[in-house]
Amino acid sequence: MPTTREEALHIHRINQGKLESKSKVPVRNANDLSLAYSPGVAEPCKEIYNNKEKVFEYTMKGNMVAVVSDGTAVLGLGNIGPEAALPVMEGKAVLFKSFAGVDAFPICLGTTDIDKIIETVKLMEPNFGGVNLEDIAAPNCFIIEKRLKKEVNIPVFHDDQHGTAIVTLAGLVNALKLIDKEMSEIKVVVNGAGAAGVAIIKLLNRFGVRDIIMCDSKGAVYEGREYGMNDVKSEVAKFTNRNNETGKLADVVKGMDVFIGVSVAGALTKEMVESMNNDPIIFAMANPVPEIMPEAAKEAGARVIGTGRSDFPNQVNNVLAFPGIFRGALDVQATHINEEMKAAAVYAIADLVKDEELNDDYVIPAPFDPRVAPAVAASVAKTAMETGVARKRIDPAKVADKTRQLAQIDDNK
Amino acid sequence: MPTTREEALHIHRINQGKLESKSKVPVRNANDLSLAYSPGVAEPCKEIYNNKEKVFEYTMKGNMVAVVSDGTAVLGLGNIGPEAALPVMEGKAVLFKSFAGVDAFPICLGTTDIDKIIETVKLMEPNFGGVNLEDIAAPNCFIIEKRLKKEVNIPVFHDDQHGTAIVTLAGLVNALKLIDKEMSEIKVVVNGAGAAGVAIIKLLNRFGVRDIIMCDSKGAVYEGREYGMNDVKSEVAKFTNRNNETGKLADVVKGMDVFIGVSVAGALTKEMVESMNNDPIIFAMANPVPEIMPEAAKEAGARVIGTGRSDFPNQVNNVLAFPGIFRGALDVQATHINEEMKAAAVYAIADLVKDEELNDDYVIPAPFDPRVAPAVAASVAKTAMETGVARKRIDPAKVADKTRQLAQIDDNK
Repeated sequence: MPTTREEALHIHRINQGKLESKSKVPVRNANDLSLAYSPGVAEPCKEIYNNKEKVFEYTMKGNMVAVVSDGTAVLGLGNIGPEAALPVMEGKAVLFKSFAGVDAFPICLGTTDIDKIIETVKLMEPNFGGVNLEDIAAPNCFIIEKRLKKEVNIPVFHDDQHGTAIVTLAGLVNALKLIDKEMSEIKVVVNGAGAAGVAIIKLLNRFGVRDIIMCDSKGAVYEGREYGMNDVKSEVAKFTNRNNETGKLADVVKGMDVFIGVSVAGALTKEMVESMNNDPIIFAMANPVPEIMPEAAKEAGARVIGTGRSDFPNQVNNVLAFPGIFRGALDVQATHINEEMKAAAVYAIADLVKDEELNDDYVIPAPFDPRVAPAVAASVAKTAMETGVARKRIDPAKVADKTRQLAQIDDNK
Repeated sequence: MPTTREEALHIHRINQGKLESKSKVPVRNANDLSLAYSPGVAEPCKEIYNNKEKVFEYTMKGNMVAVVSDGTAVLGLGNIGPEAALPVMEGKAVLFKSFAGVDAFPICLGTTDIDKIIETVKLMEPNFGGVNLEDIAAPNCFIIEKRLKKEVNIPVFHDDQHGTAIVTLAGLVNALKLIDKEMSEIKVVVNGAGAAGVAIIKLLNRFGVRDIIMCDSKGAVYEGREYGMNDVKSEVAKFTNRNNETGKLADVVKGMDVFIGVSVAGALTKEMVESMNNDPIIFAMANPVPEIMPEAAKEAGARVIGTGRSDFPNQVNNVLAFPGIFRGALDVQATHINEEMKAAAVYAIADLVKDEELNDDYVIPAPFDPRVAPAVAASVAKTAMETGVARKRIDPAKVADKTRQLAQIDDNK
């Protein structure tokens, strides 16, 4: 069988999809039944009725994440609807489980109405310990995430934004070690004003980068620009592009230290790279074809080049972040995933590349590096406890151990 | 450890509940990832985008049932809310899987508003091949089921109504063989006007029973009664109690052939049983203490007595019905579970008690009889195809084989 389209269809068809429900207790006979169901089940029901927080202890909620999508921005496929999005959300659930033992369940919703999506997630809160928003188009994704974070008491995390931002920042943290620069002194252009671009800019800002320009298809975004703006771009314009530069990408990329692309194939030319500062760092994450191919970027002088692809070095893969982040958040029954927890995840990922191993082609750990999820989980759990969003305390070393035990991946970096 | 409260709490606590998500495909390395997730996952997405019905083939939907509750009528505990109801819904999901290989997932909703419950289930339809409504109080359960059946294209089944009715009817079919009577000639009193009582009466009517009286706590329900009525009782009154009897249970039970109780402990006295016709048949299903204890019923002359309890003969246990019903419905991608499919389930269950085995203490197969789910599934699938609610055709014998292979119970009847 060819390892392509047919093989991919085959593995989805043979078992009717990729995700199943499984019992953690045997129900083979009447005695089992009397404990797992009537009459025994009434005991945990009563415990939870008397103290609602016990739902984390006696039910699946404490380890279960909803993977919520409306199917409007699925992979590179766009607005394909909730049914066609389901294979991706099942896949995401499978990754949660395989990388960090987090149970997850797809909720593909038959609406694109913001209020209905928010209402539905709120009504389902009793079942879940966290919500992973996925493949919801901008700007709705921003509004939905912001409101849900206020209105539910479990972590809400839009992976397309924050997962990508966290892994990119981890790569940048390490790349800057190679060129011996601080976050506060670099100039960064981010090409792409969608979910990931905005989140990357916010995280760069938090990490002390002061000189950032966002570009969209029309060029640099600046305060007061009178075309192609929206609420989010206006918000970003307030703390970026301090000199109000107005050119196209080719203009503003000149002299920059870092290019971060979450845009389209070919957006960055060799000439543009040549116009950047010495030893430029490039994350070209358009999929499947990056903004510039690594070989071309290197020829034009790039020092470090990362992409979204597994067949090139420095792959920016969200799977480095979200399984460990939710593992850590669930293990302390976190109410939120706050900015400190995201920063903790950045450093946990970056720190796995030891100084003696660090080089231009290795600033980001490999996706299947088994150290990643345990390190991220422990660090996120620790930070949640330190920042007051944890309902429960646990030794971070135990979180790491548990993650290692639950993961089902091979180390084949 | 004592086999009681502590043991029940223990098995719920050790694994954080009873249900987990599980991957059906390995994701151990980059090659696995490229098939189960990006880029391979785009292939089934595109197939489904081009033909929405393919979602049954390439995703979990075709084998996944939502177990939906608002926590208003949970076991004997009443309105305990969605969090406290979750152990029961997880348990239900576990039973679906253990008895018939049906994947199921709890959806406990943080609302009791009928419109919101209906809307939420509709929005989640892309993920599920069926909906099992559970532990929703009457009369809301009737309204929700009726509207959902019209508004979604997957089977909707309120197990508290129909599961109980189907198993009770199976027991009655066999009990009537013992006393050599036809459905058309018996007189039945049903005590209890909740979800199960109403469904039992409707199914009795469908099976040709012409003489039925429903009692509630105020006595016989009749057309025009001016107290304690609701829409459903009024509807039932139209085709029952033809002589408009107005007494209490003790009055109307006189001369009856069958008593069916879905009410409260002790509702049926020995004196009442003595006042019934010869060889009375009694299903006393109040839990955990039945309307009359089997020994007392026998002393008062009862021929057959069934209860909801596992420690007495003739247990009316819904687990005999719902796993096989959904197994059969899913395997033909049914759009509905219609009346014919319910009737098919009744006969499939009843027919497993062979004439030579049939006796007063064995009119219903044991809950863990491994023949039940395969027989019910095959019969339901066959009937779905015959009555035009199947999207897909499959040999019923194959449905039975598959059910046998997927079940994870021991035969310990």
